[in-house]
Amino acid sequence: MAHIELNNDLPGIRGLMAYRPETETPLNALAEMLLRNDDNTLSRGERELIGAYVSYLNDCFFCQNVHGAMAGHYLGCDIEQIDQMKQDFKSNGLSDKMKALLSIAASVQKGGKNVTEQQIQEARDAGATDVEIHDTVLIAAAFCMFNRYVDGLATWAPEDRQFYVNRAPQRAQEGYQSSVYK
Amino acid sequence: MAHIELNNDLPGIRGLMAYRPETETPLNALAEMLLRNDDNTLSRGERELIGAYVSYLNDCFFCQNVHGAMAGHYLGCDIEQIDQMKQDFKSNGLSDKMKALLSIAASVQKGGKNVTEQQIQEARDAGATDVEIHDTVLIAAAFCMFNRYVDGLATWAPEDRQFYVNRAPQRAQEGYQSSVYK
Repeated sequence: MAHIELNNDLPGIRGLMAYRPETETPLNALAEMLLRNDDNTLSRGERELIGAYVSYLNDCFFCQNVHGAMAGHYLGCDIEQIDQMKQDFKSNGLSDKMKALLSIAASVQKGGKNVTEQQIQEARDAGATDVEIHDTVLIAAAFCMFNRYVDGLATWAPEDRQFYVNRAPQRAQEGYQSSVYK
Repeated sequence: MAHIELNNDLPGIRGLMAYRPETETPLNALAEMLLRNDDNTLSRGERELIGAYVSYLNDCFFCQNVHGAMAGHYLGCDIEQIDQMKQDFKSNGLSDKMKALLSIAASVQKGGKNVTEQQIQEARDAGATDVEIHDTVLIAAAFCMFNRYVDGLATWAPEDRQFYVNRAPQRAQEGYQSSVYK
């Protein structure tokens, strides 16, 4: 049960957003811009994977399943493959650029000052642009917010992981702007 | 020097926002709603203090000085008084409600699951509403994002703390919507 009375039975951040539509609007606008905006050289799947990975590091069940399923939807991977990427991104088939960006995201999760010049250089050497590095840091930072919001108020989450997989195609079609009302 | 070439000399998050206006808009909209929206029973000074305190816990020099100065501006306190509140909020003259909310904010900074039922109950016993508890958790979570964004990209910050104090009245007047262009 959530720490506060939400007056709805929506899971995770959706219950919080329905409870407080004043803050739902900028939060969804941020998610939409970070994860879906088409004017971005990181694919939607790559950006969702960064969010899922940081949510995994923060041990947020709801967010890592929502965004893991979204990453799987875009990248054509199943739950097990996404789990493997979260648990050990260095040993799977991701590009060197994505490995370098996920390494930066892991440092951001610990705290901003953990990002090193060497990590930035390795990302550049693997072909990452400054904008891609910027967006990786901001996506990782944003999920440190979303994860704390969801768990800090003790929201509930469906335990069946297939729930998130089934929902992903609809979310991919509709985006994050209207999540409260679906 | 920042990890990426920002092509401007603005400090802290302002340099990042000028570099990437696409993400500036929702970030400032969120800050405006969380910290300034008038339809809130927490005062602007109380909300800025939560942000400054979390930024202190995250050791983010830029954010703790910007928002510490904003809190001081609204609450009528000088730098030393705000520093005392950040360093030991339980021993100063804050209300029991603010002490309980700052305790929740400190748990959110560590990670969402650190917030306990007892902390929520203590906040309620001290008169906090569910919306105030919600907003405290989200403000604390949001600063875990802002702090990581600012430090994860190694932005520079003016060392003279009076800079932030001098700037606070103008920021209080103009809000966060237009920070890039000032």
